[in-house]
Amino acid sequence: MKFAVIGAGNGGQAMAAHLSIMGFDVTLYNRSPEKIERLRQRGGITLEGEVEGFGTPDLTSDIREAVKDADIIMVTVPASGHRDIAYAVIPYLKDGQVIVLNPGRTGGALEFNNILRQLNMDRRVTIGEAETLIYACREKEPGTIRINSVKNIVFFATIPSFMVWPTVKMINKAYPQFVPAKNVLETSLNNIGAVFHPAPTLLNTGRIEADNDGFEYYLEGVSPSVATVLERIDMERLRVARALGIKLPSAKKWLEETYGAKGKTLYEAIQNTRAYKGIKAPATVNTRYIFEDVPNSLVPIASLGNEVGVDTPTIKSVIQLASCMHGIDYWENGRNARRLGLDGLTKDEILAYAEGNFAYEKEVSL
Amino acid sequence: MKFAVIGAGNGGQAMAAHLSIMGFDVTLYNRSPEKIERLRQRGGITLEGEVEGFGTPDLTSDIREAVKDADIIMVTVPASGHRDIAYAVIPYLKDGQVIVLNPGRTGGALEFNNILRQLNMDRRVTIGEAETLIYACREKEPGTIRINSVKNIVFFATIPSFMVWPTVKMINKAYPQFVPAKNVLETSLNNIGAVFHPAPTLLNTGRIEADNDGFEYYLEGVSPSVATVLERIDMERLRVARALGIKLPSAKKWLEETYGAKGKTLYEAIQNTRAYKGIKAPATVNTRYIFEDVPNSLVPIASLGNEVGVDTPTIKSVIQLASCMHGIDYWENGRNARRLGLDGLTKDEILAYAEGNFAYEKEVSL
Repeated sequence: MKFAVIGAGNGGQAMAAHLSIMGFDVTLYNRSPEKIERLRQRGGITLEGEVEGFGTPDLTSDIREAVKDADIIMVTVPASGHRDIAYAVIPYLKDGQVIVLNPGRTGGALEFNNILRQLNMDRRVTIGEAETLIYACREKEPGTIRINSVKNIVFFATIPSFMVWPTVKMINKAYPQFVPAKNVLETSLNNIGAVFHPAPTLLNTGRIEADNDGFEYYLEGVSPSVATVLERIDMERLRVARALGIKLPSAKKWLEETYGAKGKTLYEAIQNTRAYKGIKAPATVNTRYIFEDVPNSLVPIASLGNEVGVDTPTIKSVIQLASCMHGIDYWENGRNARRLGLDGLTKDEILAYAEGNFAYEKEVSL
Repeated sequence: MKFAVIGAGNGGQAMAAHLSIMGFDVTLYNRSPEKIERLRQRGGITLEGEVEGFGTPDLTSDIREAVKDADIIMVTVPASGHRDIAYAVIPYLKDGQVIVLNPGRTGGALEFNNILRQLNMDRRVTIGEAETLIYACREKEPGTIRINSVKNIVFFATIPSFMVWPTVKMINKAYPQFVPAKNVLETSLNNIGAVFHPAPTLLNTGRIEADNDGFEYYLEGVSPSVATVLERIDMERLRVARALGIKLPSAKKWLEETYGAKGKTLYEAIQNTRAYKGIKAPATVNTRYIFEDVPNSLVPIASLGNEVGVDTPTIKSVIQLASCMHGIDYWENGRNARRLGLDGLTKDEILAYAEGNFAYEKEVSL
């Protein structure tokens, strides 16, 4: 079984190296040839922490090369890059291939699928999304990745949804942690980044811009009052899911299931998450935690909420403040219901569409 | 001419001492007798900084005592205390007395006036509000106040509005800086605390809860991206004012007019405001900057905006996050248009009501 890993950020390097160490045939792709050249000169990628070893994936900056013989194409670029990757990858796809967004954030697989349909591709590929990246890791330097932890469970869904079982069976050869979810709405709404990324960044703006050393993002940045806001955001997320008939664990419960961390409150559970120790705050508010997670996590959750009659005032406030700080209308540019092709559908139609029932398909302006 | 100063916080102590040093007859009132007793034992109040000297106001914790012979009653308690002070003071008011809220924040004089009317008081008093406290000051210890600066201009308005000229003439004997404004909507909307207090506090939540030493509130807390949000809040405030036919200076211009501080951006102007040096961030998010300014500054501005068709999404986001952090529905509990008696009025009716034209008066639930 052959893997392609798309994107040589910290997650992509970790995954490609780990797959290689596990003995799989794997090609790591990155758009910039410089990054690939640097890794090539090193001869491979060093993993430290929970996984240790030296991985030697094939390396390329030619996407066709990476994709052509792969059985499973693991996409590890930020969600803000999914659209570009879709347009770049789709022309080279072949029947039977599997694309996995690691993670999809919210609406990643739907967006990818909309582009596929828009390009009139008749190839039978499966588009999957993981609810989270399986690794909590940081790049120490190019070619050296510290893996703080490998998650115990990663929920995973596909479009069409009936392909989830055969697909998970394939992925499980490398990652037994992958577990089937009902549909991509479940993985999309079980997006903890939506809760943990934008709000703590915003609520630490002054400190991020004053403190160049970088403070502990979770252990200091998620102070008790920040955690109070996160609990509210999480509640709004769970309400949107519930309105779609999807029961999800709270962020607190998720920390317990994923990292074995417990606590009476979300604040306590975060304080007790060992994997978060050492994760530094971003050096600037121009960070993935905002430009990736606001348009690709919070906007689709809030916009789906609008469609099913659930208001999300706290999420919308974070979207507004982020938009205002970055001078970008994230609502308009993000994965809103219109862009996902879900606007104007009933709850049942939304579910059917997300499961790959194309009766509800419509023209989507992408 | 006799003054009463209501509230012996830093502003009240500064004002009472300064008036005493200037030679006026002044009584300082505080609800807690302990505070008064401590000042009495000291023999008076020491001022340092831009004003220096030792003031010896009369001291009392009996509000009737403070109010009964005063020509001008200067209220210096936080806006969240205005309602209680109104109920406490009103029974002892006499014809011809002047009440001045320092500052009114937004809607202070309207709220006071509504309570006066609700209690069926037929005494002819003038209710005034200053747009800001004339002093930028901090209490070093009880009885010692450091005055960082005395503002150059303080706009002031009254209900009824035609009383502003004779009232300003009286106040000018002590404070030539007081300048007449057209009506209390002008002073209420020229409320810089609305811009400078809640948002920088919220956007520094993590740091406030992590850093016990207290960082520089303005010089560090208002980082470039925080200032970007403040500019947007300020723009929304100016739009609400403009819809009511009121032209106000921007916060940046206000810094120049008030402190002589200049800059290309609001960020630069704040960095160049000497008076802000040394002002520390609050030690907790349970601070006046939130519990005073959200319900008494941001809520009335946003709610007035709703009445006149101006949306204020950034202000509403700050209200939402603050409400969520404090577990208090500040919109419902704050000075919304309904509580101010302004809901359902046209623009012209709102102006007339704010100028003391009681044709538009209605039952207000307070």
